[in-house]
Amino acid sequence: MDPAVSDSPSSLFSVPAERRLPSHGGDTAWATTRFGEPQSGWLDLSTGINPDPYPVPIIAADLWARLPTSGHLGGLAIAAAEAYRAPTESLVLSPGSEAVLTLLPRLLAPTKVAVLNPGYGSHMTAWKAAGHRIQAMPAENITAQRLGETRILVVGNPNNPDGTRFEPELLLSIADQLSQQGGLLVVDEAFADGNPETSIAPHAGREGLLVFRSFGKFYGLPGIRLGFALAAPRLASALRDGLGAWPVSTPACLIGSTALKDRAWREATVAHLKARGAALDAAFEKADLPVFGSTLLFRLVRHSQARTLFNRLGENGVLVRAFTERSEWLRFGLPDDAGLARLIATLDRVRTAD
Amino acid sequence: MDPAVSDSPSSLFSVPAERRLPSHGGDTAWATTRFGEPQSGWLDLSTGINPDPYPVPIIAADLWARLPTSGHLGGLAIAAAEAYRAPTESLVLSPGSEAVLTLLPRLLAPTKVAVLNPGYGSHMTAWKAAGHRIQAMPAENITAQRLGETRILVVGNPNNPDGTRFEPELLLSIADQLSQQGGLLVVDEAFADGNPETSIAPHAGREGLLVFRSFGKFYGLPGIRLGFALAAPRLASALRDGLGAWPVSTPACLIGSTALKDRAWREATVAHLKARGAALDAAFEKADLPVFGSTLLFRLVRHSQARTLFNRLGENGVLVRAFTERSEWLRFGLPDDAGLARLIATLDRVRTAD
Repeated sequence: MDPAVSDSPSSLFSVPAERRLPSHGGDTAWATTRFGEPQSGWLDLSTGINPDPYPVPIIAADLWARLPTSGHLGGLAIAAAEAYRAPTESLVLSPGSEAVLTLLPRLLAPTKVAVLNPGYGSHMTAWKAAGHRIQAMPAENITAQRLGETRILVVGNPNNPDGTRFEPELLLSIADQLSQQGGLLVVDEAFADGNPETSIAPHAGREGLLVFRSFGKFYGLPGIRLGFALAAPRLASALRDGLGAWPVSTPACLIGSTALKDRAWREATVAHLKARGAALDAAFEKADLPVFGSTLLFRLVRHSQARTLFNRLGENGVLVRAFTERSEWLRFGLPDDAGLARLIATLDRVRTAD
Repeated sequence: MDPAVSDSPSSLFSVPAERRLPSHGGDTAWATTRFGEPQSGWLDLSTGINPDPYPVPIIAADLWARLPTSGHLGGLAIAAAEAYRAPTESLVLSPGSEAVLTLLPRLLAPTKVAVLNPGYGSHMTAWKAAGHRIQAMPAENITAQRLGETRILVVGNPNNPDGTRFEPELLLSIADQLSQQGGLLVVDEAFADGNPETSIAPHAGREGLLVFRSFGKFYGLPGIRLGFALAAPRLASALRDGLGAWPVSTPACLIGSTALKDRAWREATVAHLKARGAALDAAFEKADLPVFGSTLLFRLVRHSQARTLFNRLGENGVLVRAFTERSEWLRFGLPDDAGLARLIATLDRVRTAD
């Protein structure tokens, strides 16, 4: 009867204690408590969200007053399937990837689960909370030969926060091997939009493979709460049942469909984010901050005094992502053009003060 | 390893077969397939959703581009707690009540669950899917004396679709009794907005009690996907963890907070919906359709030829809710003023044709 609770009840209302790091990026409320309100506002680079969002179409007021119909939901699923080059029937709509990645472990009987480490923390948390036996697996062990008794393997591709990439052929062979034991490969492609060639979404629908895609990050619209899982028919059906009859809002159906169908915007956005990423790399090189992991939407840098740099940036209104267990790492989300100029100036200032 | 799937995989894309009834209201796509597109559009009375929605405040485009902060989420929870006169710390935000009522059974170890019958079908479906042993319980057995080995009891108050009401004192004594066995009383108050005196939301937070509230129905904004659970701390925390870090959209936080704080609108709306309900009752009396169940947002009528009436109304562009297992029942959602006039005229026409 006991709910599967963690020892520390989460609360909607508490901002993490000042000196502890928040477990997710984007918490400028925490940053203000920690560093004070910056004069020119926060430059928030603590998430990996496109700072130049898709232009939101006008939402007629009556869309809020209507439940999403099978037409709205189906239209969104078709648009997503086309954008991700995945089979339409594999598509599961979710109010953000967080909701469906939290649900998945509860649908599967407890078993041996390996989770790529480092990786996005919510995966580990969710599989643990659902009673699975967890093994943290380094990237070099992600081979068909080293899976041992692993039944479920969870990886990011490209991986957050270190940008590690896995070849589709490797992942497909692992999925097949796990599938033969009744297992599952889970591939989180939240940051794959810049690298469609590494996506295995086109293979979604085969047994033993589940793919997560995020809408909010690449389209710069995380406030919409929209994400996708792509899975074989039985698991897709169980996920749909678990998320309920109307998993996403009616405006999300409209905005999501419009954005996902807009191939010209997608291609132009990949190109301009790549160009800005190159400018960001140049800035890091000048600042003597080696980049050792990247995706279209963030850079991971290493610095022996990373926590000091995190604090100096914070004191200057630039919030980046630090990691409790990796004290030498800092992750920088891609800024917009104005943000890039401000970041370069701030890095110059705080590094000169060394 | 097998996901908990039902025998008939659900699909986003299929409209239920013409001759089968849809399992939820609001499916005008099904109605069009079944009856054809009405010349003057559908008068959709198949849901229990306020037809005069809360006026949606203007949503700044940049709200879509921001994750909801702890300020957004906390502000919404505080507004909901005040509106429902419930302790703030009991509040759990959900993307619609469907999402959280589907999650709840998966957080609790399989046990003996009694579900009020007739009742809202998703409860039964969700508890079954999570592997609990289910007993359908008639309203007359909902007493502290007749619970037998029931560990979890699920009721609607007022109940959908028959409007049955339970006294708060009865429910609280049942909650206490179940709680002593480590059990839980689940009260779905999706239709309680018109009857705040029967709500036990003010008691949420005590062990053994969980309350669901719906935002979209009373506020007429189901497209927003917003609902609430109210529970004791450990269960509330487990539900929050299960729904993930950002359970509702940033616009939903703003619209929801604004609407829930608007006491004047709420009170005026209850009054005008009650007045319109009285006019609707008069129309049913004139049409010789006895109303035997009601809430602020719907009326349930009985008729020996209910399915025929359902079809005649459908052929005339009025969609109501029929029930597969209760062939003499029809549920009518409250129409707006124009809809009421159209319903009266249509009833007149189809009844005269008898």
